[in-house]
Amino acid sequence: MIHCHSLDSDTICALATAPGGALGIIRVSGPQALSMVSKICRRDISDFPANSVRYTHIVSTPLQPVAEPQQQIEIVDEALITVFHAPRSYTGEDAVEISCHGSAYILNKVLDMLVKNGCRIARPGEFTQRAYLNGKLDLSQAEAVADLIAATNKATHDIAMSQLRGHFSSDLKTLRGQLLELTSLLELELDFSDHEDLEFANRTELLELAQKIESHIASLAQTFETGQALKQGIPVAIIGKTNVGKSTLLNQLVNDNRAIVSDIHGTTRDTIEETMDINGVQFRFIDTAGLRETTDEVEKIGIERTMQAINQARIVIWLLDQQPSCDELEEMHNLLKGKIHLCVHNKIDIIDSKTFTPYITPLFTISAKTGEGIPNLKQQIFKEAQKSGLTANANGIIITNARHYEALTHAHANIQRVIYGLHQQQSGDLLAEDLRLVLSDLTEITGEGQITPQETLNHIFSSFCVGK
Amino acid sequence: MIHCHSLDSDTICALATAPGGALGIIRVSGPQALSMVSKICRRDISDFPANSVRYTHIVSTPLQPVAEPQQQIEIVDEALITVFHAPRSYTGEDAVEISCHGSAYILNKVLDMLVKNGCRIARPGEFTQRAYLNGKLDLSQAEAVADLIAATNKATHDIAMSQLRGHFSSDLKTLRGQLLELTSLLELELDFSDHEDLEFANRTELLELAQKIESHIASLAQTFETGQALKQGIPVAIIGKTNVGKSTLLNQLVNDNRAIVSDIHGTTRDTIEETMDINGVQFRFIDTAGLRETTDEVEKIGIERTMQAINQARIVIWLLDQQPSCDELEEMHNLLKGKIHLCVHNKIDIIDSKTFTPYITPLFTISAKTGEGIPNLKQQIFKEAQKSGLTANANGIIITNARHYEALTHAHANIQRVIYGLHQQQSGDLLAEDLRLVLSDLTEITGEGQITPQETLNHIFSSFCVGK
Repeated sequence: MIHCHSLDSDTICALATAPGGALGIIRVSGPQALSMVSKICRRDISDFPANSVRYTHIVSTPLQPVAEPQQQIEIVDEALITVFHAPRSYTGEDAVEISCHGSAYILNKVLDMLVKNGCRIARPGEFTQRAYLNGKLDLSQAEAVADLIAATNKATHDIAMSQLRGHFSSDLKTLRGQLLELTSLLELELDFSDHEDLEFANRTELLELAQKIESHIASLAQTFETGQALKQGIPVAIIGKTNVGKSTLLNQLVNDNRAIVSDIHGTTRDTIEETMDINGVQFRFIDTAGLRETTDEVEKIGIERTMQAINQARIVIWLLDQQPSCDELEEMHNLLKGKIHLCVHNKIDIIDSKTFTPYITPLFTISAKTGEGIPNLKQQIFKEAQKSGLTANANGIIITNARHYEALTHAHANIQRVIYGLHQQQSGDLLAEDLRLVLSDLTEITGEGQITPQETLNHIFSSFCVGK
Repeated sequence: MIHCHSLDSDTICALATAPGGALGIIRVSGPQALSMVSKICRRDISDFPANSVRYTHIVSTPLQPVAEPQQQIEIVDEALITVFHAPRSYTGEDAVEISCHGSAYILNKVLDMLVKNGCRIARPGEFTQRAYLNGKLDLSQAEAVADLIAATNKATHDIAMSQLRGHFSSDLKTLRGQLLELTSLLELELDFSDHEDLEFANRTELLELAQKIESHIASLAQTFETGQALKQGIPVAIIGKTNVGKSTLLNQLVNDNRAIVSDIHGTTRDTIEETMDINGVQFRFIDTAGLRETTDEVEKIGIERTMQAINQARIVIWLLDQQPSCDELEEMHNLLKGKIHLCVHNKIDIIDSKTFTPYITPLFTISAKTGEGIPNLKQQIFKEAQKSGLTANANGIIITNARHYEALTHAHANIQRVIYGLHQQQSGDLLAEDLRLVLSDLTEITGEGQITPQETLNHIFSSFCVGK
């Protein structure tokens, strides 16, 4: 699809709320926003004070002038109109929010009337894209808006809010400052390149600074794994024999979780995965097919499946309802080697945990059926997740966006080349070239001080919902 | 559940938009609305001018004062706050609308914070109930709000909007005026009851007025059937033999219908019903199981099914792909007797309509496969629906609400008793008693001038969505 619309002249509109509520908000933004909305209100709203709300009618316009206009005018809705004047709006343009009754008919009709008056239906994320183009947000902040809306728990919300508030941008600013410092030191070296003794002194300083930058970039890039785990839910595999109570435990862990607003996150669930929050962090529980012991062949398949689940998981819960055999223990020991795991004795409502020999420690005792021990187990899962390295960088920043990760990875490779070049006594010209690449990689994240190609922008904003 | 909250002291909150959009609006209403929202904003919003919008942060409050407050404050969202001062708000109370990012986490958190500050989650329709109790709307207008939000097409929207605009209320006001006139005439009769000749003159006048009222009430009550058909979709059965193209026709009729906002009306669909709009009126197409001719027994079942569909339908489409036999024609003639029906010759892309004898008229020719003739057929369906009596009363009013219908039916029965009493020369006292009942039935609809029991109110508003 070719978008040939000029951003300067277009006025865009979209439904900003989900369809189906008591209220629906239609957003209009662009140079003609006030005049276009005036047309569907049949009154001039351009003299409404900025940031004020007014009750008004949305009135459908007959296509032709009629003899008795009063009869032909159809009141589409009684609405509240909020007027924003450029640049004091979300997009930085003139903007109007129309708060209608949330009926599909009304919302369609109002959008339709706006389109007939020359408005264009906004592309996904186009309001935020305009906010970026008008300098209201940098790119990483704009991306944080989409993440904020998608956030379903405290952990992902906090990351997105921190990014929206510009914490990541300011961390990158620090980095850019250091890179500029490095560049100026390099220039100093170039100026004094005739003096051999001076050069070596500078090179040490250069190397130290480059290493500092390298470790800063590395620490940022390393948080991506945590970001992904938090975004998708930290994978926890529940393994154990059939009928040991894995599904009951899964239900017990998940059902306990209630929200005032019904759950809306669009996680695709298959039959064996469920997500839930513990202390605001999302966990993704993987209920494995139970290990069966009928024949060796089937046993093998069972172990393969369990292996897959273990590989996927950050934490493994090994559920037991009886003392495992020595063979089993050895096998599990091998399977779980180096993996964070919890041994959990289920069915304590009917089976005494004292019948277990003490060589499995720590052993958690629960009853998935009655719920006994579950709160304790949850807190332990949370603690293990923390221990497993849910780490932010020193400034509390966690990267969740693949585009940022890619840019950081490139920046990291390029700063490593700078360090290598310093060790290899490369010329200042070559070093300066690599430094420019690092700087360019980092500015790509925020989009500041460079011209971001339209395709990149379209790609970034196409993942937004319409109306934002 | 016992609601012991006093309407005077409670402040209520709810999500007014559907979860899942770019924006989510939380409504707060009640005497403490401004102070409670001030607490979660950490700034005094009570001095914001009425009907103004302000950008502010929603800030979570630590439970205990902390040494370094700045570190403990969590910014939950950057929101727009709109302040309304009583009585100039939807509910007539002090009210605040909080426009947040539409994330489940944020919306839950904000509601949670409001509740922790003393707010109560609103019951369904409670905002509108308060608007009614504060005299902003009468009962029938309040009910129109729920209908307006549920409206998915022009016909149901227009009825709800007309009702919200008070057209039905004003029609009822006219009726009440006439009833009061009748009562005063009756009082006049009572005053002059010694003069026998005067009484008879008045009685004729009384009768005429009573009959006028009776016919007005009857015409209102009669629109209920139309209202129901418009609300649920006018049922159209598609009948015919198997493989005559019924499902293809259904798909062709339905698929043509596109909306900018995706369809959200919660119509339960089973495999054989689909709804669609023609000229803003909703139709419900019933695709019947085809008539089979394998054995007499199966044929009988097929006809029974078809009979059921015909009985349900207001309009029947008899789909053919070849000249029907004389027996078939006779059978259909009997089945469709007195029913609005359209004979439609399908597959004109492969079968020439000239091979049909002319004794089926009018015969519509279409190709469900290529879409030929479909727009024409749609318009004919719409015309037939209009002819079949989709009638408003003389003032353009259509009743859709079962409660109103019930009240009108009672009023009608009571005014008929008045007329009967007039014919029977009943005493003025008895007539006045029946007149009072008619008046009481009608005032029940708008709730004006009478105390509506709490249970009735709860019943009316419980069908609303939360947040309205």
